[in-house]
Amino acid sequence: MDPITTVVELPLEAADRAVRAALADHGFGVLTEIDVAAVLKAKLDVDRAPLRILGACNPTLAHAALRADPRASLLLPCNVVLEPEGDGTRVSAVDPRALLSDPALADLAQDAAAALGSALDSLGGTPS
Amino acid sequence: MDPITTVVELPLEAADRAVRAALADHGFGVLTEIDVAAVLKAKLDVDRAPLRILGACNPTLAHAALRADPRASLLLPCNVVLEPEGDGTRVSAVDPRALLSDPALADLAQDAAAALGSALDSLGGTPS
Repeated sequence: MDPITTVVELPLEAADRAVRAALADHGFGVLTEIDVAAVLKAKLDVDRAPLRILGACNPTLAHAALRADPRASLLLPCNVVLEPEGDGTRVSAVDPRALLSDPALADLAQDAAAALGSALDSLGGTPS
Repeated sequence: MDPITTVVELPLEAADRAVRAALADHGFGVLTEIDVAAVLKAKLDVDRAPLRILGACNPTLAHAALRADPRASLLLPCNVVLEPEGDGTRVSAVDPRALLSDPALADLAQDAAAALGSALDSLGGTPS
């Protein structure tokens, strides 16, 4: 699955703040956060590069998706992943069009993909 | 996408505790929790049936998946959804085999699906 992705010239913590602000500007709240590197260190004593997963949700789109197909709950929220790349941070969002194969959700998936794409575009990074 | 699902004869809160214990017994931690009904009430003033999404993660399988394909981060953790059904609670887990289409992740997806299936089976509910 190919994500919606960009690389911003900000270190991870600053990128995290910028991503949250951009998501909010485009109607998405961040409902969950996973510090994957910290979890794997705690559970497996593994050292790995930082990796953070934000769970982003647009309430209007989520509500409409759940009404159209309750199984949409299996695929909410949309992951937005942050990881260092060079001196900056790669920001990658799952493409809802790749997840929501139910035809009843196609328009909503398109709307969500467009909003996530606009949010990432607004970061002014280098799309890749 | 068809979930792995069962209906247990427990109200939501008791089912939540039982699900967390069953997941832990099968190697999954719960990293995130979303009270969807509360979010939609707060954001949209919508009244709807309870709906809770737990984000379950088996650290060993997640670490292996991320090593095999870093894009697996777009699809972690595995959603386990709780919602009332009759006097009980329907528990539905996303089927990792349906999400992880990368052939390099097929064996890991199978292992995760088997472990989630065993966890839900151990609840003693009615598979459906």
